[in-house]
Amino acid sequence: MSKKDREREEETKKTDPRIRERAESERLNEQLSFITEIDKEKTILRQTHLTNHGRREDDAEHAWHMAVMVWLLSEYANEPFDRARCMMMCLVHDIVEIDAGDTYAYDEEGKKTQRSREERAAERIFGILPGDQGKELRDLFEEFEKDATPEAHFAHAMDNFQPLLLNHANKGSDWKEHAVTREQVNGRQYRTREGSQVLYEKTRQILDLHEKEGCFRKKAEDPKDSQQ
Amino acid sequence: MSKKDREREEETKKTDPRIRERAESERLNEQLSFITEIDKEKTILRQTHLTNHGRREDDAEHAWHMAVMVWLLSEYANEPFDRARCMMMCLVHDIVEIDAGDTYAYDEEGKKTQRSREERAAERIFGILPGDQGKELRDLFEEFEKDATPEAHFAHAMDNFQPLLLNHANKGSDWKEHAVTREQVNGRQYRTREGSQVLYEKTRQILDLHEKEGCFRKKAEDPKDSQQ
Repeated sequence: MSKKDREREEETKKTDPRIRERAESERLNEQLSFITEIDKEKTILRQTHLTNHGRREDDAEHAWHMAVMVWLLSEYANEPFDRARCMMMCLVHDIVEIDAGDTYAYDEEGKKTQRSREERAAERIFGILPGDQGKELRDLFEEFEKDATPEAHFAHAMDNFQPLLLNHANKGSDWKEHAVTREQVNGRQYRTREGSQVLYEKTRQILDLHEKEGCFRKKAEDPKDSQQ
Repeated sequence: MSKKDREREEETKKTDPRIRERAESERLNEQLSFITEIDKEKTILRQTHLTNHGRREDDAEHAWHMAVMVWLLSEYANEPFDRARCMMMCLVHDIVEIDAGDTYAYDEEGKKTQRSREERAAERIFGILPGDQGKELRDLFEEFEKDATPEAHFAHAMDNFQPLLLNHANKGSDWKEHAVTREQVNGRQYRTREGSQVLYEKTRQILDLHEKEGCFRKKAEDPKDSQQ
């Protein structure tokens, strides 16, 4: 045993019993169970592809990107907001998809059952945490869903703007692949306006560019659309 | 064109010219270039494997997990710290690896050139941002590297504790695969103590468990080690 290791062993013997108690507590074990459980978010694939026409993105990567964007783009928010809360909202907003799966933004069938699937998932997954933290994260998730606070508005702006940027870098290939119309994309992106007028304006400019290049399906190509 | 789309078009015409100007500004373009560039972090693989003996983890997933942990485990920090700054530090601490690559914690050869490779990378990548934000993120990265503030201490604790939890869930398979000794792991994990005595104690308990199960290479197996 090296000198350094012997020193460490000596220190360990002197560890404050209160520290040892907290390290062995049920509370910490529940927190670590949750942290281990959410590792599964890294295996939930989205429809968006990484830049350079890469593989499909996963939920954890999407959430990471969104949280960095909250920090960097906060100057464009319509209203002042709490950056840490908004970042955490972004980091956990898709955790329910571990059970409920990803529902593509333009999957109208899937969206019908999305809410009930995600409710059950929130119950189970946030339920792994100690009561106070389970409630805190569940509240943060519901706040995102209700979309009625400055933090939720900005988080939704990021949830739209992040895949838009990847798709922009890939010359609109995801829109082409799924044959979506400009109107469908507008419908989703419109929400960005609540969080940031500037980023909504930028969104419009980017979409105009891709519309000119013929990325979107024309409504007339599908007879259903003309009835709208 | 639907009624909703016509309404949107009308609104667009009325867009405040100041909003349009900010949307077209060089500043926003630089921020978006950076955001698009760091997408590459999702392709940098670490040595750690996802739970359930999954594939190797990438840098963005690791950073996402760390930032969630900062929020949930902050009660165990030795000192009070700014949660948003610490989360952002975790989110960006590995961005330099886009150019410099991941250096495995026990790769002694790679570690010799790590600092200079990462310096050059920081210069280029943070340099994409507008001056003030480039400096802000570079400073945050350097603060992490120097490890002298409460935020940096806690971020380092997360940087150690996150892969430890994955490896724990996988019955220590990464340690076995790389044939590391308990002493090597101690050397790295010891840093956690600066950020959180409780999480360091938990680390020690987890390592004891895996040592009993024979996860670590014995020092005597390599004659070099006995000279230490």
